[in-house]
Amino acid sequence: MRIDIITVLPEMLESPLGCSILKRACDKGLAEIHVHNLRDYTLNKHRKVDDYPFGGEAGMVMQIEPVDRCISALKAERDYDEVIFTAPDGEQFTQPMANRLSMLDNIIILCGHYKGIDYRIREHLITKEISVGDYVLTGGEMPAAIIADAIVRLIPGAIGDEQSALTDSFQDNLLEPPIYTRPAEYKGWRVPDILLSGHEARIAEWKHDQAVARTLRLRPDLLQND
Amino acid sequence: MRIDIITVLPEMLESPLGCSILKRACDKGLAEIHVHNLRDYTLNKHRKVDDYPFGGEAGMVMQIEPVDRCISALKAERDYDEVIFTAPDGEQFTQPMANRLSMLDNIIILCGHYKGIDYRIREHLITKEISVGDYVLTGGEMPAAIIADAIVRLIPGAIGDEQSALTDSFQDNLLEPPIYTRPAEYKGWRVPDILLSGHEARIAEWKHDQAVARTLRLRPDLLQND
Repeated sequence: MRIDIITVLPEMLESPLGCSILKRACDKGLAEIHVHNLRDYTLNKHRKVDDYPFGGEAGMVMQIEPVDRCISALKAERDYDEVIFTAPDGEQFTQPMANRLSMLDNIIILCGHYKGIDYRIREHLITKEISVGDYVLTGGEMPAAIIADAIVRLIPGAIGDEQSALTDSFQDNLLEPPIYTRPAEYKGWRVPDILLSGHEARIAEWKHDQAVARTLRLRPDLLQND
Repeated sequence: MRIDIITVLPEMLESPLGCSILKRACDKGLAEIHVHNLRDYTLNKHRKVDDYPFGGEAGMVMQIEPVDRCISALKAERDYDEVIFTAPDGEQFTQPMANRLSMLDNIIILCGHYKGIDYRIREHLITKEISVGDYVLTGGEMPAAIIADAIVRLIPGAIGDEQSALTDSFQDNLLEPPIYTRPAEYKGWRVPDILLSGHEARIAEWKHDQAVARTLRLRPDLLQND
């Protein structure tokens, strides 16, 4: 799949996109991620992309024109399945949404910055508004990196062990059971005996019981959605 | 405030922490962010920090020993208010939580990686588990960057215009009203006339009505929490 990210701070995305799973998936040809500097789509000599809000308010607002020019240039090259804007008041990003997005061919993610973006961009150019959580950030760059990471790791072959993604939290509406590794005892804190027993069926049962118990205790809402 | 981030991928945090508000807040002395490579706290010559899970399962698990050694080394230097672990099954990160965390002096954020971390770390070393959202990522590095960004921008002086943070979404349980900037008309798409009227009281009323209407439509749950 191809992800085009539009931002005023391309340098902020360098290390998140240049490391780990995202880099490996791109190196393997499983994903292509292109970062576009919004300032390259301005017509004014100061490459300014923001201006004061109408109606008076603190903060600056990202203008429609460079955004429209950038999105139009991309759309002239290929069809896009979604033009996503990361906004705290968008639809909540969830694992099922990540699953659906991972099956698309081409998406654009526009990162907001400053106080916000001209609302006409949201009304006319954006097809999907996504919030990664109920909190306010400096810009949409980290949310874009999160969306890219969550999606790309689901593409078959992106992570070494596909089984590992299938047993992640949320994929079956259950939180994961506790996991442990060596040493079996550390400062008097012991791994549960059952996990050292070698009895596969009982271990599987214990893990399932623990997953259900943790979900009931920490996130009962996940079970109600069944 | 001081934030210590513990990770196996310190390079992934370079550009998010080296840009924008976070960098400026650190340059101004308002915040200190230190990134620690977990591998520096291993005793084995391969600097290995993970091992296979007990009880058989796909994926690798982060071991307790290097984590304990790193946290202990930090705690020997100063007191910490919270030792945070970013986990998809942790407490949901919200703006009120960001407000509270922004008033602390010293916090540690441990980034998970691989399939997960030895559960004894969570039971014995972590004081607060935070989830930035209901989705699974490659690691806890982006969540740590998000928590740092959301917190640090709330420190007085971190963003240019403090008024701007106070009117953000969630700070008053209302989403923001639509905002617009020049040009007043673009491709036939016009800014609402009221915002061009210069009538301050009516503009304020319009903004409030729009904020309430958008919240009722998109996030009625925010109003129920009042």
